Amino acid sequence: MPVRAFQNESEFVRWLRRIVPARRGRLKLGIGDDAALIGVGRGQELILTTDLSIEGVHYLPTIHPPRSVGHRALARSLSDIAAMGGTPRFALISLAISRRTTRRWVEGFYAGLLDLAGRFGVAVIGGDTAIVPDRTVIDVIVCGEVPARRALLRSGARPGDHIFISGRLGLSALGLRLLRARRRPRRSAAPSPRLFAAAIRAHLYPEPQCALGSFLARRRLASAMIDVSDGLSTDLAHLCAASSVGAWIGEELLPKPQPADFGRAEQWDPTDLTLHGGEDYQLLFTVPRGRVRQVPREFQGMRLHWIGAIWVSKRVELLRPDGTHRRLEPGGWDHFRNPRD
Amino acid sequence: MPVRAFQNESEFVRWLRRIVPARRGRLKLGIGDDAALIGVGRGQELILTTDLSIEGVHYLPTIHPPRSVGHRALARSLSDIAAMGGTPRFALISLAISRRTTRRWVEGFYAGLLDLAGRFGVAVIGGDTAIVPDRTVIDVIVCGEVPARRALLRSGARPGDHIFISGRLGLSALGLRLLRARRRPRRSAAPSPRLFAAAIRAHLYPEPQCALGSFLARRRLASAMIDVSDGLSTDLAHLCAASSVGAWIGEELLPKPQPADFGRAEQWDPTDLTLHGGEDYQLLFTVPRGRVRQVPREFQGMRLHWIGAIWVSKRVELLRPDGTHRRLEPGGWDHFRNPRD
Repeated sequence: MPVRAFQNESEFVRWLRRIVPARRGRLKLGIGDDAALIGVGRGQELILTTDLSIEGVHYLPTIHPPRSVGHRALARSLSDIAAMGGTPRFALISLAISRRTTRRWVEGFYAGLLDLAGRFGVAVIGGDTAIVPDRTVIDVIVCGEVPARRALLRSGARPGDHIFISGRLGLSALGLRLLRARRRPRRSAAPSPRLFAAAIRAHLYPEPQCALGSFLARRRLASAMIDVSDGLSTDLAHLCAASSVGAWIGEELLPKPQPADFGRAEQWDPTDLTLHGGEDYQLLFTVPRGRVRQVPREFQGMRLHWIGAIWVSKRVELLRPDGTHRRLEPGGWDHFRNPRD
Repeated sequence: MPVRAFQNESEFVRWLRRIVPARRGRLKLGIGDDAALIGVGRGQELILTTDLSIEGVHYLPTIHPPRSVGHRALARSLSDIAAMGGTPRFALISLAISRRTTRRWVEGFYAGLLDLAGRFGVAVIGGDTAIVPDRTVIDVIVCGEVPARRALLRSGARPGDHIFISGRLGLSALGLRLLRARRRPRRSAAPSPRLFAAAIRAHLYPEPQCALGSFLARRRLASAMIDVSDGLSTDLAHLCAASSVGAWIGEELLPKPQPADFGRAEQWDPTDLTLHGGEDYQLLFTVPRGRVRQVPREFQGMRLHWIGAIWVSKRVELLRPDGTHRRLEPGGWDHFRNPRD
């Protein structure tokens, strides 16, 4: 599918950085990180982020119930705040509703969104609304806070830092594939029932890692952080590019489902899902060598996995258990290349 | 055109207010005003607003050049900040770009947007982008500031307050009609050349009234304020509803073009354009009787017109020069009733 304006998202962001006047004054961080950072005094900085959720692009009416659409639309922005180490406070919702939409859908959408907002202490304070003839477009804006000078950027990783990931990866991508295939958990031909349920849940109702992000920022444990929204391979590349470094990842260190979990079905490759599956909203962070011991093995019941390290080379490599290695190409989501219909 | 979810925008906002948890803590003002207000200490409050601009709904590719689309998309949000008496500081741009869009269009869009941002000292600090198969949807988020307890709300009007409007109304609506009719300024059959140029300019490149809004807030001159985005009749109804009051407007007090300006063309009714034409982004504000004398006749070269007063009755009436009066029905823009194609 040709997109006439720009080849891909990176080209667009590079172009935007060139034409937008440089940051100044109280603006700490502009275009290119998970969110923008503004000094407001009182020892606090403000975080602003906005995320589009588009019918047929970010969600499919045949797969995602309205509650899930509302949950996921807000979760994307909460995860951006988590990735800066901040605490989300306020949200605005811009909703271009398709003329086809029923009141029931709008009610389900807001129920899912407000449920998640309530659990995270986020107040919905405004927005805009319009009716459109074709597809629904949602934009969720979240305003968060972080103690001054504690925000975690993508650009802070240094050679020698260890790389960590929270929780499990690839679950959401597996859930999407299961939902698309309309599979039910069956003996041996599909993933195990427990993995099945976890994958569907991870896809429809992902949990932003705000508590972990805030913990890492307050304790000054991490040197850089990003949330895994586009897939590990893609988001690690973003972090490395922002930090002007490279990295290696140990394939056997990756927190992936065991082959037995997948039954006999050959079409699910656990490594592929773990490396390239998006929308898990786990946190990928780097820790200076001297602080690695202070990183807990678990945080609120969720494992934190050491998966590799930053090095001087600009390359990003995947090390295999047999000692061979290959370049880890970004294989995740690019919003300019993969519109879904 | 039937919209299945809600009858109109007011019904949607009422429903939203009911389901969204009530304001609390540092949140001063939530859904229903021009923008949301948040206390951040340091004697300042933060204003957050977001506005959609949708291809075929808020702008037409055949009429609006990309520079104008960028300008207007930002102007809508800047005007919301102006309507609270605030000063805009930062903007985020969410852009769902149609696959058909050319790079030239995107460049023109950002040129128009950044030009306006630069003139108002607004830094563009982030956003989100995606490609969509059909129409382009733009969401502009602006963060502004206002001294604590000085923000002007829609809800502050009291009986006896005088009603003022800045500049001229109906120019933008006239400009849109001229652009739609592809008229050129001709002798006698069309508006006068000066009015013609002013109308086209007012429509394509409206000027948000941030300096006036901030002046009125700092001097504590106004009791309530709203920007005229949907048309005087509609926005006055919004202000009156928020303040639980009514108002009368003197037809001969309205700042409308003289009949001579319109040449022989009968299709432009100056009163109709002035009462119901939207997108002028002038400020409509109320002033307590005791402070009326302190309102200057002009602000930075722009006339401030006294046009009526708030009264105890909940009715909104138009008083004619002959002493008769009629109910002033909201005749402007409703985003739920008038999708443009």
